[in-house]
Amino acid sequence: MEVQQFLHMNGGEGETSYANNSTLQRMAITKVRPIVEEVILDLYCTSFPKKLSIADLGCSSGPNTLFVISHIIDTIEKKCRQLGHPLPEFQMFLNDLPGNDFNTIFRYMLPSFYEKINEEKGVGLEQCFLAGVAGSFYGRLFPSKSLHFIHSSNSLHWLSQVPQGLQDEMGIPLNKGRIYLAKTSPPSVFKAYFAQFQRDFSLFLKSRSEEVPGDGRMVLILCGRRNSDPSSSECSSQWELLAQALNDLVSQGAIEKEKVDSFNLPYYAPSIQELESTVEKEGSFSLDRFEVIDINWDGSEDDNEETFEFDKLASAQNVSKCIRAVSESMLASQFGEVTIDELFRRYEQNVVEYQSNGKGKFINLVICMTRKG
Amino acid sequence: MEVQQFLHMNGGEGETSYANNSTLQRMAITKVRPIVEEVILDLYCTSFPKKLSIADLGCSSGPNTLFVISHIIDTIEKKCRQLGHPLPEFQMFLNDLPGNDFNTIFRYMLPSFYEKINEEKGVGLEQCFLAGVAGSFYGRLFPSKSLHFIHSSNSLHWLSQVPQGLQDEMGIPLNKGRIYLAKTSPPSVFKAYFAQFQRDFSLFLKSRSEEVPGDGRMVLILCGRRNSDPSSSECSSQWELLAQALNDLVSQGAIEKEKVDSFNLPYYAPSIQELESTVEKEGSFSLDRFEVIDINWDGSEDDNEETFEFDKLASAQNVSKCIRAVSESMLASQFGEVTIDELFRRYEQNVVEYQSNGKGKFINLVICMTRKG
Repeated sequence: MEVQQFLHMNGGEGETSYANNSTLQRMAITKVRPIVEEVILDLYCTSFPKKLSIADLGCSSGPNTLFVISHIIDTIEKKCRQLGHPLPEFQMFLNDLPGNDFNTIFRYMLPSFYEKINEEKGVGLEQCFLAGVAGSFYGRLFPSKSLHFIHSSNSLHWLSQVPQGLQDEMGIPLNKGRIYLAKTSPPSVFKAYFAQFQRDFSLFLKSRSEEVPGDGRMVLILCGRRNSDPSSSECSSQWELLAQALNDLVSQGAIEKEKVDSFNLPYYAPSIQELESTVEKEGSFSLDRFEVIDINWDGSEDDNEETFEFDKLASAQNVSKCIRAVSESMLASQFGEVTIDELFRRYEQNVVEYQSNGKGKFINLVICMTRKG
Repeated sequence: MEVQQFLHMNGGEGETSYANNSTLQRMAITKVRPIVEEVILDLYCTSFPKKLSIADLGCSSGPNTLFVISHIIDTIEKKCRQLGHPLPEFQMFLNDLPGNDFNTIFRYMLPSFYEKINEEKGVGLEQCFLAGVAGSFYGRLFPSKSLHFIHSSNSLHWLSQVPQGLQDEMGIPLNKGRIYLAKTSPPSVFKAYFAQFQRDFSLFLKSRSEEVPGDGRMVLILCGRRNSDPSSSECSSQWELLAQALNDLVSQGAIEKEKVDSFNLPYYAPSIQELESTVEKEGSFSLDRFEVIDINWDGSEDDNEETFEFDKLASAQNVSKCIRAVSESMLASQFGEVTIDELFRRYEQNVVEYQSNGKGKFINLVICMTRKG
């Protein structure tokens, strides 16, 4: 499966669109705001460049697409006002895979974005320049030393491809009935997934290291885990419940068993240690800071766990829609569009059951890095 | 009428798409190739920059979108090979209005473009960086002094808006039954069109002057005229024939007379003198070179006028499809989609008649400029 072609958030603005089901992403970005703020101010105040070049990798096409960029402008504008400095020019690059809906960004999001920063901050069209860049961040995207700051949220857990080596020598699938790492997955499957992650993340670091000068910064947010076990429920339950739903459809005869057996997600949720060791081994960046943030599966605010009662059905519906918005493009290309509605009805039920004792949580890892000089 | 919203080439890949009806544009670009080649080589060989930043303004979304950029890479690659120099990095910006189909460029054109330059020239993904920029070139699009070379073909005859002042004080249209300048248009209409062109083109020059450093270059190609009269048939016949077709539909009761009376194209074909004086008055660029190129309405190669017999119906069909591809978005928003097929059937007949004694020709003006130091 060509991830470049099949991995994209659901487009448009319908009920199952990513645009309407990206509260998780918003929650992550919101929680990371203070960190981004600190890094960008530190960067800006080191040399007060006349132009700040920034890239958001995996920007998608939805209500969060311009959120980070907007926040960065806000932060710098406040600081400049405080210091009585003129505002720098902003060159902002929005990147995602070619399947992303850039037309929607350009036609419907940019006009109101420009209006907003102009009204609220007096930042005009002649000060903030946005460009779209289509391509995989597992490879070069920008000219050498052309960016000051790189941000990526909720994207780097997607691998460049489904790992190779998930079949035996006879071509028989090794991870039958699963779509991601599970307790019962054989060791070679674990190995293949980790190797793919290491290759991809190293290539990501190497590519970025050429695009930022010494002292250039990155803030990356991705799904991960605290536990050293890659099949730990904290990072794989959402996919186990989806595998269950797929297997139910197999039992019903709605989809072929072989199709589930041969399907694996191009996804990996690394541990803190795995990230650290990959960064260290690649060598271009120094790790400045590490944070772990829990986010409810349904994208809701944190609750008081002891006393909180929540609407289990509504929560499961949100979870189901969010997971559908990010995975439908891949699932539809493997199992056909017709199965998707039924699949996510079942998934929703599985989530209700899973969350009977409390909300599921995603572990988000936040890492801040500086390009070594 | 918001030109930003309604002016775009027909999208998609259908029979009436710009993608399939842009031979005119291709012909213009092909004829200007040697000029672009000369300018880009002169620019490159002056300082041998490690990175060449180039923008194509009004890139559209069709077979010509990457033609100029591809040719520039080709030219530089040959020169570098000749000199034994390493290839510079290329940062290429593709610009058009937000209504342009950038998704098609990113999804379907870039992959084969990258494959081609890699196979033919050994230029890899790590050497050529493309970005899409959506916005009007009548205003800033890029950071200060960030571009070496700017190219624009077949776009600058489109104004930023339909000129104001095409109605009298009572709101009564002054250019009734016409859609562009015609012999019978009143003087105030001529004045309004020229004023709009001057304002727009000056703003274009001023915006670009901030985006290129001293010695930065531009090559611009646009429809114009040799004649000093703006209603000269050499630059307005294609629209007169369209106005005729619209008026026929009015006679038939298919569209309202008022809609034709109040419709005017945001278009201006300047004379050489008008361009020269506007460039001089704005003051940022020096005019290095001026060429006038004739291009057959149907996009065909030049013919020996004396002996050549041509298929009048086939030619008129091509002309009609080309004009439809560039004007349908505006016509449909004024007259409704349902009238378009019939309109262009009539238009085709008008073109057959008009070309009974020979092919219609567009006058293309080519201007090369250098940013004053």
